[in-house]
Amino acid sequence: MSDFKPTAKTKIKRLNKRAHYDRQSTYAVLDAGLVAHVGYVFDGHPYVTSTSYWREGDRLFWHGSSASRMLKTVRGGVPVCVNVSLIDGLVLARSGFHHSVNYRAVMMFGQAEAVTDEAEKLKTLEAFTERLFPGRWAEIRPVTKQELKATMVLSMPIEEAATKIRTGPPVDDEPDYELDVWAGVLPLKVVAGEPVADPRLKAGVPLPDYLRGYDLEAYGERREAAE
Amino acid sequence: MSDFKPTAKTKIKRLNKRAHYDRQSTYAVLDAGLVAHVGYVFDGHPYVTSTSYWREGDRLFWHGSSASRMLKTVRGGVPVCVNVSLIDGLVLARSGFHHSVNYRAVMMFGQAEAVTDEAEKLKTLEAFTERLFPGRWAEIRPVTKQELKATMVLSMPIEEAATKIRTGPPVDDEPDYELDVWAGVLPLKVVAGEPVADPRLKAGVPLPDYLRGYDLEAYGERREAAE
Repeated sequence: MSDFKPTAKTKIKRLNKRAHYDRQSTYAVLDAGLVAHVGYVFDGHPYVTSTSYWREGDRLFWHGSSASRMLKTVRGGVPVCVNVSLIDGLVLARSGFHHSVNYRAVMMFGQAEAVTDEAEKLKTLEAFTERLFPGRWAEIRPVTKQELKATMVLSMPIEEAATKIRTGPPVDDEPDYELDVWAGVLPLKVVAGEPVADPRLKAGVPLPDYLRGYDLEAYGERREAAE
Repeated sequence: MSDFKPTAKTKIKRLNKRAHYDRQSTYAVLDAGLVAHVGYVFDGHPYVTSTSYWREGDRLFWHGSSASRMLKTVRGGVPVCVNVSLIDGLVLARSGFHHSVNYRAVMMFGQAEAVTDEAEKLKTLEAFTERLFPGRWAEIRPVTKQELKATMVLSMPIEEAATKIRTGPPVDDEPDYELDVWAGVLPLKVVAGEPVADPRLKAGVPLPDYLRGYDLEAYGERREAAE
């Protein structure tokens, strides 16, 4: 896979030991996440909207109501910035200054376009659903023509991107290691709880296997198994 | 507490049953979160940067290196959009169309300014640390003058804000409730794991109480207890 070429927008100047420009690192972060923050300019003002997203090959996808301001603005080919940030832990150092956060973050720049072909739109919505819940697409009631029309799907090539990753223990000033202060990392993770059935769930419908022991970050592995 | 007045930027037009404009709802979300996404315009392009943040009264704070592009741009009083989104669950409906996400999200607009007074800066950094780890500020090595200079703290009044919250089971089309499809909510939550001590931790330093059974969302309660 080809690397990303750092640009004026994506070149990481400070702490560049945390910077990655290879697609593998970037896609590993994207495939482990669920929510992206999309930034765009409307009437001269910056807007940031959170949305679920998915990746197929070298493109990022997100979707929503055809009436959404964000989607209507962004499909017009205006410049967007998409940020996906995963928080892995709080880093407790011996001084306030060296406290930090362990994270994996991707910042992407580009222009999005609407997926207009109906078959293509349906196919990528299926990919999104299957990414989250392998096997569910065949179980649910099929999408109607009207629903497909009311859904906007945007797609953006992943071409201008930077990935920043911090891992590991705090890095303290050398003399501070002698202090009697606890230091280390408090790991953080998004976990799934026990599925809560809809109060109106039809009697006798079992919990699907894909919801048992659900691991949000296993997207990437599920994707690889499916490909 | 006074409510927010919806503006052209914050008026939620679709699904407005999810909209909240009271400070209590907004602050409850802000106090339960850790990471904000700050959007701003630089050279005509939108940028979105993730950052930790904290709230004091009716102001939002975030900080970083004085050399950060985001902070240097934003302290100049340019318009910013700050988004805090907490994901509470995946909502599985009987049709793809009605699948959804349970979330709590705040979108804020305003202009940020740098906290320049040294004493004030120090005080708010203490508040940030104590919000996360009550008692830690007194344990760690005090901030030096140089460190304080190298740290930029930004603050923004919380005046133009909208909060959007979705909770509860899926809402399906009436005929679909008869289908043999599992429906409900898969709850998601950010949880802390077991603290990992720095390999260079001085022998005999115990794990602080504030890291035992750590509950990330208990910020708000800790804040209330401290006030």
